[in-house]
Amino acid sequence: MSALSEGLTQIVIPLASLVGIGFALLQWFLVSRVKLSSQDSSNGYKQKLIESDEEEEGINNLEISIKCTEIQHAISVGATSFLFTEYKYLGIFMCVFGAIIFLFLGSVKGFSTKSEPCTYSQGNTCKPALANAIFSTIAFLLGALTSVLSGYLGMKIATYANARTTLEARKGVGKAFITAFRSGAVMGFLLAANGLLVLYVSINLFKLYYGDDWEGLYESITGYGLGGSSMALFGRVGGGIYTKAADVGADLVGKVERNIPEDDPRNPAVIADNVGDNVGDIAGMGSDLFGSYAESSCAALFVASISSFGISHEFTAMSYPLLISSMGIVVCLITTLFATDLFEIKKVSDIEPSLKRQLLISTVLMTAGIAVVSFFALPSEFTLFNFGTEKEVKNWHLFFCVAIGLWAGLIIGYTTEYYTSNAYSPVQDVADACRTGAATNVIFGLALGYKSVIIPIFAIAIAIYVSFSLAAMYGIAVAALGMLSTIATGLAIDAYGPISDNAGGIAEMAGMSHKIRERTDALDAAGNTTAAIGKGFAIGSAALVSLALFGAYVSRAGIKTVDVLTPKAFIGLIVGAMLPYWFSAMTMKSVGSAALKMVEEVRRQFNTIPGLMEGRVKPDYANCVKISTDASLREMIPPGALVMLTPLIVGTLFGVETLAGVLAGALVSGVQVAISASNTGGAWDNAKKYIEVSLQIVL
Amino acid sequence: MSALSEGLTQIVIPLASLVGIGFALLQWFLVSRVKLSSQDSSNGYKQKLIESDEEEEGINNLEISIKCTEIQHAISVGATSFLFTEYKYLGIFMCVFGAIIFLFLGSVKGFSTKSEPCTYSQGNTCKPALANAIFSTIAFLLGALTSVLSGYLGMKIATYANARTTLEARKGVGKAFITAFRSGAVMGFLLAANGLLVLYVSINLFKLYYGDDWEGLYESITGYGLGGSSMALFGRVGGGIYTKAADVGADLVGKVERNIPEDDPRNPAVIADNVGDNVGDIAGMGSDLFGSYAESSCAALFVASISSFGISHEFTAMSYPLLISSMGIVVCLITTLFATDLFEIKKVSDIEPSLKRQLLISTVLMTAGIAVVSFFALPSEFTLFNFGTEKEVKNWHLFFCVAIGLWAGLIIGYTTEYYTSNAYSPVQDVADACRTGAATNVIFGLALGYKSVIIPIFAIAIAIYVSFSLAAMYGIAVAALGMLSTIATGLAIDAYGPISDNAGGIAEMAGMSHKIRERTDALDAAGNTTAAIGKGFAIGSAALVSLALFGAYVSRAGIKTVDVLTPKAFIGLIVGAMLPYWFSAMTMKSVGSAALKMVEEVRRQFNTIPGLMEGRVKPDYANCVKISTDASLREMIPPGALVMLTPLIVGTLFGVETLAGVLAGALVSGVQVAISASNTGGAWDNAKKYIEVSLQIVL
Repeated sequence: MSALSEGLTQIVIPLASLVGIGFALLQWFLVSRVKLSSQDSSNGYKQKLIESDEEEEGINNLEISIKCTEIQHAISVGATSFLFTEYKYLGIFMCVFGAIIFLFLGSVKGFSTKSEPCTYSQGNTCKPALANAIFSTIAFLLGALTSVLSGYLGMKIATYANARTTLEARKGVGKAFITAFRSGAVMGFLLAANGLLVLYVSINLFKLYYGDDWEGLYESITGYGLGGSSMALFGRVGGGIYTKAADVGADLVGKVERNIPEDDPRNPAVIADNVGDNVGDIAGMGSDLFGSYAESSCAALFVASISSFGISHEFTAMSYPLLISSMGIVVCLITTLFATDLFEIKKVSDIEPSLKRQLLISTVLMTAGIAVVSFFALPSEFTLFNFGTEKEVKNWHLFFCVAIGLWAGLIIGYTTEYYTSNAYSPVQDVADACRTGAATNVIFGLALGYKSVIIPIFAIAIAIYVSFSLAAMYGIAVAALGMLSTIATGLAIDAYGPISDNAGGIAEMAGMSHKIRERTDALDAAGNTTAAIGKGFAIGSAALVSLALFGAYVSRAGIKTVDVLTPKAFIGLIVGAMLPYWFSAMTMKSVGSAALKMVEEVRRQFNTIPGLMEGRVKPDYANCVKISTDASLREMIPPGALVMLTPLIVGTLFGVETLAGVLAGALVSGVQVAISASNTGGAWDNAKKYIEVSLQIVL
Repeated sequence: MSALSEGLTQIVIPLASLVGIGFALLQWFLVSRVKLSSQDSSNGYKQKLIESDEEEEGINNLEISIKCTEIQHAISVGATSFLFTEYKYLGIFMCVFGAIIFLFLGSVKGFSTKSEPCTYSQGNTCKPALANAIFSTIAFLLGALTSVLSGYLGMKIATYANARTTLEARKGVGKAFITAFRSGAVMGFLLAANGLLVLYVSINLFKLYYGDDWEGLYESITGYGLGGSSMALFGRVGGGIYTKAADVGADLVGKVERNIPEDDPRNPAVIADNVGDNVGDIAGMGSDLFGSYAESSCAALFVASISSFGISHEFTAMSYPLLISSMGIVVCLITTLFATDLFEIKKVSDIEPSLKRQLLISTVLMTAGIAVVSFFALPSEFTLFNFGTEKEVKNWHLFFCVAIGLWAGLIIGYTTEYYTSNAYSPVQDVADACRTGAATNVIFGLALGYKSVIIPIFAIAIAIYVSFSLAAMYGIAVAALGMLSTIATGLAIDAYGPISDNAGGIAEMAGMSHKIRERTDALDAAGNTTAAIGKGFAIGSAALVSLALFGAYVSRAGIKTVDVLTPKAFIGLIVGAMLPYWFSAMTMKSVGSAALKMVEEVRRQFNTIPGLMEGRVKPDYANCVKISTDASLREMIPPGALVMLTPLIVGTLFGVETLAGVLAGALVSGVQVAISASNTGGAWDNAKKYIEVSLQIVL
């Protein structure tokens, strides 16, 4: 039996969620004390000494504050309107897909309303198929709504914080950093706590009906993960196309052709670009990490429900994944204090170490946290379900599973930092290659991305090996959870990036001084790295989660082996390995086409609107926003369909074995494509910043 | 029993080889009738009517002929000296690796000199372990030497033909085409016939010792494949780094910075660039395709030797792979006549259809050829070895296996053509994207490469499924052979590309008229496409061959299943899928660094050599050649080591199961990386040509 009683578990989980939400609100409150459009911009928070880098700059310029507020408003309106349009589409999809889930699950046993003997816990009666269909659909809808909510809340906070960060940058880089970081933390904690709370409440509500039928209960709950990740797919793709089309379009004409600075208000695509950061890198990322989190929790819960403590109804042990997440919230809370209160950013070069320290601190603390949870929540010995056989597992085995996932995440994070930060040689080499033109830059950038795959893959492979060996598929699922256990901190430093990016944009658009722009640029450069780190976490955890889900699929489909030496599995493998390329071809083509249109529109405006270049006339921002919006909404459907339909088509036409091959192939190939592309992008972005800073020093 | 007697088989195979060699020599003779440095450049071959595009141009300019001869000489000397240096390294490697093979194979049974009972043909005695070690090493050395010879001969022919093609271009595009194509055919036929002949002779010589022990005989012969492909690895990587460094370096300074035409003699890297085409795209490609050919033949022979007709010593059935190749030579011979004698190239737009027709004709004829061979060479029913079990197979099953490989090759070829020829929308879209700058061009180019993976992967998957289902691993091996059966034609149209490229370079350097340069450019554009097609064949066949070898490895290692659901195999899979990225990162970084150095050297020469830009002084070509040479020789070792050491290290440290996963992962991931990169490159190259031609039309 677990040392932690069921009653205490029932208190601890919601309490941790509420603490997380409370902490998020506190951070929000602190950010909100930075006043817009007012001369009194003291944030009431303990005033720090102003040091070398921290000279105040144009702090009393009311006009600029008003301008910032206006720009923030424009970005916020743009982002909100895009998300609402996107969510309209997603709403339709949710209903259709929800109906499909209901019909498929229900029809398997003819919408039977009769209770049946359970599959795994023999001798017990389980709820009828119709109930499972209904509850799965509800869980799916809950997951989808939570995902959407996560993205939306993140966007709201980010567009609330961006101008505030700009205004704080007048007081110094430290103040600006704190504002951006706190805002990121709001998003991180809200999302982590919210995801946990909804899941916890759903389980308890579902239990009112399911009672002793835990098999049915936790099988229905898996819908929550599916809802979360399917929304994430569309949110990520749609937001990604939006932001990249705007980004490429704005820079190609503005920076390259017209030689005006990034985010110059004369650039017609500048609002679209800033909106893009919020809908792509914030809302999309939020949905994405929530999706991974929900999937890994559900996968772990499902496997646990058919294991010994599931069958013997030990609620505390069953709730191990939720307890890990609860501990994660507490650990991240302490970690955040290190950045906001215990250490202080005095100069630009402090930023990146501070963010890096966040990763390390949260990982070290969490390791202890995992030990505590594993010791108190789990029986010292139990059996896990493992493809039809049973596996003896000890509680410290699970400690290792979760911890290795956590540390693999840290390694991925640090590797990503090394390959995408302009403090190290890889990015500097890429920047250096630009001396001989775009071609060598492209070659070096792609090579960097390819190379950056090596260490993360070894980290993931070792995590898989250890957790799989110790606790089979349950081990993989909790390893993924381990990697995501510090999600609040991960999201905080991730969301910090686009917020700083926006802050820089607002500074430029509001015509603030060069010095302020330099500060926001420094925040932004660190932000590019943390955004890449965030993507690294998302990819790494997605790889583990996919494997856990793959295991769940294989268990459910009754497949005992997926033998590469059979033609069915092998062709599945090779075709599966192709799918990420197909997917990438679609999304890149979409970005390319939308960027082309954006470039043409921006050029048209520069050429036909008299006085635009001179800054006398405002450009038509709305037209550019429309191009990005239309492109992303139209183009997110085919890649989404590819992902959602492939399993259905392959499974139906070629059977479960080939499908297993396809899933394995897509997984092992996709993770490479994802890491290399993400790091190449991050490196290019920071190589650009590195060159700009170097040029400024030279000049 | 086979309808074809053993005696006849013993005549047919060497006869076909000799016919192939004879035909190659005839083509060479015809090319040689184009005289260099002489006013009488009539080639004695039936004079064709001169039509619209075929006006003679500066045909009596003796000075130009002499210049062409000089340039050709310089290229030939550069290429020969590079290859000799490379072969010195390869010679050392060959000896070391040969010794390792001998020691490993010999030591397994303590260099035993005692005969042992056979593993598969029970009741018989097989030769001692020491003999197998010796003969395997000899076969390895033979394969390596044949590979080197193939590359070297190809280079010799290409550097013999390039200036002749240029001179013929004065008479018209048709004449130039014939010269380049014939030269390609020399290489194709020499290589195909040579590979077959050496293999055939080796088998017969080995048989003098092995006698009835076919198991040992054909196991030793597999060394031939290993020798061929290991040389191919280094030849390809070394030659590839050489050519790309020179190409990028020459173009970046010459075309982009100095705005002088491609291949302008004032460009210091121009000779290195042209040498690169010969050592990379000709010698490297020749070794590469020979390697695939040798591996697939050996894999098929080995599997056959432990099958029913191997055990019952039916020589004709055993020689099925060789007979397929023999038939291939005859079919390609007929196919070649269609290009050289039956149809005629009258204008630029005829070139690509004519090359495409070669693919189609050879495939159609070969399909009939396969039917004939399958019917006469195989017993109507027999059993094949299939991972410890036996499989009943009919002769028409094998017809389908070979034919589906052949047709999959055609589909890959046509898909490649579609994605890399500037006659179709994909390349035109990439060219169009350049209007908005390098960034959109890169996005569209990469997307094109990713997209171009889809159809070839389905073709390969179907070929694998059918051939695997019909005849297990033997089916895969002969499917690979089917794809390579028209290798003579494939190589002819492939080698045609770099020859035309060189011809264009020589025309430019010799200062020939714009009209002639236009003709060679047209040949070259088609050549870029055929080179991509050649790479497509190389990749497709390599995928099949690797799978066959994988099967051989699995059989030999006694692995019954490679179950993705075991942690050992799965981490192998994910790490294996990473290896192509690691490999690519190394080679791309090498190309990038060498290109950087090249750019700096070319810039230095332009900046410091007075009169160079005005054409009064010759640049220092040798320095650029040295940069490419040094870089390629130094940098080919790490990627080569990665490929060769991974199996040894993984197998030793983590066992055969993990290694099986690594091999499967590397295979399914590598084929995607290879196809997408190859087609992106081909498309970019032709997009450039497309833009140049369009600009000329506009001007």
